[in-house]
Amino acid sequence: MSDRPTATPERKQVKHTAGRGRLKMTDAGRPATFLVEACNEHGETVSTAIAGEHPLTIYLDKREIVTLMTLGQAPEALVLGYLRNQRLVRSIEDVESVQVDWETGACAVTTTVSRINLDQYLKKRTVTTGCGQGTVFGDLMTEVDRVALSDKATINTAGLYALLEAVRLRETVYKRAGAVHGCALAHDRQIIYFVEDVGRHNAVDAIAGLMWLDNIAGDDKIFYTTGRLTSEMVIKCAQMRIPILVSRSGLTRMGWEVARKIGLTMIGRATGKHFLLFTGNNRFER
Amino acid sequence: MSDRPTATPERKQVKHTAGRGRLKMTDAGRPATFLVEACNEHGETVSTAIAGEHPLTIYLDKREIVTLMTLGQAPEALVLGYLRNQRLVRSIEDVESVQVDWETGACAVTTTVSRINLDQYLKKRTVTTGCGQGTVFGDLMTEVDRVALSDKATINTAGLYALLEAVRLRETVYKRAGAVHGCALAHDRQIIYFVEDVGRHNAVDAIAGLMWLDNIAGDDKIFYTTGRLTSEMVIKCAQMRIPILVSRSGLTRMGWEVARKIGLTMIGRATGKHFLLFTGNNRFER
Repeated sequence: MSDRPTATPERKQVKHTAGRGRLKMTDAGRPATFLVEACNEHGETVSTAIAGEHPLTIYLDKREIVTLMTLGQAPEALVLGYLRNQRLVRSIEDVESVQVDWETGACAVTTTVSRINLDQYLKKRTVTTGCGQGTVFGDLMTEVDRVALSDKATINTAGLYALLEAVRLRETVYKRAGAVHGCALAHDRQIIYFVEDVGRHNAVDAIAGLMWLDNIAGDDKIFYTTGRLTSEMVIKCAQMRIPILVSRSGLTRMGWEVARKIGLTMIGRATGKHFLLFTGNNRFER
Repeated sequence: MSDRPTATPERKQVKHTAGRGRLKMTDAGRPATFLVEACNEHGETVSTAIAGEHPLTIYLDKREIVTLMTLGQAPEALVLGYLRNQRLVRSIEDVESVQVDWETGACAVTTTVSRINLDQYLKKRTVTTGCGQGTVFGDLMTEVDRVALSDKATINTAGLYALLEAVRLRETVYKRAGAVHGCALAHDRQIIYFVEDVGRHNAVDAIAGLMWLDNIAGDDKIFYTTGRLTSEMVIKCAQMRIPILVSRSGLTRMGWEVARKIGLTMIGRATGKHFLLFTGNNRFER
């Protein structure tokens, strides 16, 4: 078998758009897939694509926060979105620079304001389902309880099918290599961002980072994920103020309970021309 | 839509076996699925099963360690396996009691020896792919580098297909409700344990806990997972000294690199009569 995996050529999936002003930021996306050799059931050697996975340690104003394992497609957005969703940085305006260096596997973030509650944050952690971003779950639930989701966004059957078709037609890392989850932010039938990562929580965080960078609000958007709708996914969606959440997969009871409580429109098992609408029927137009 | 989800009746999947001696332990498995109502694409109300998801906070000798989000099928084994794989408890002999109380969402573990490096452990954390158990990744890699995996276990095509068929025939939470990952420990073609959880890292840890409780060694076993083969899965497999790892899904580059380095036999995309053998060909008999 070959000694080193080979990076496969590809188009850049996540584009850095304008309007990111004075923020100093690297653009250090990594190749998403690599070719390795394997033996199939017939004993034949075949070349097959596998997904990248890289450790990336976040330093916030020189303090080590966490190490994420990531596909590395949009590392700067991922780090910003992580800090945003963990409430470690309050505003994108506070961020001076985001510097990813793959040689050291580090991302240094500097801000203009000193961090609040960082010690307290680092003391407590929750391993959320299949994810575990060290979320201070109780605090986030308190915050999410106060979220009032907008009724601006609506969805209907035709729009949902169009969105699912747009997702299906994308050329994805998943199709080439599997082992990743994809997330999309959509407005009506249009996909604004599509990010894949080896951890589905990373894909969500990267989208939160892109929304920050491009100053895009969530209240008239739809969030799509290939992953399961656990409590964590629902909470992240609410944190971004996105009122409609769609998944190809199923859901958990806690995801269902949180969605119901906050009035999120949650659609599961959405593929082709099938879906199940679980909560928030008011935004679904028949 | 109905006000409360209803627990669906089911058989207990994880049996507590003999030989657990003086260890005081609850047996607090929760119902795995609940029925809720949803609207399908035809506007019809349908009753559908969803997977449970419950927070469980681990207290080790009265110190709070972490909160896991779990399906709750085998909570005691999960907690023991978590402490085992995180190297927070050295031996099952050191454990006096494991008490799960769902009213408070807590699991209290008491041991006969005081913890080493607990403060250091709690200071550092890595969010592993889709998992993030606060693993001290560097330390584990150092440990895993020293692992010598046994050549006792071998596998061939017929045996692999028989194992895949045994997994396929199981009555699973996944079939009823989706949104979970399953893991199995197998010896030849026989499944010894089969655990599902909303987090695949939990399913692995629960099996590690069961192996501890039943004093079962890993060196002649095969580990099967429905989840992706990330670095973390490979490391956990090596920690349990299991030399053969089989997955229905794909793999990541880091999973591949670690498997190659430690000589683990890794088989991906194994379903029906298809598979790809990626590393450790020496244990595969044609």
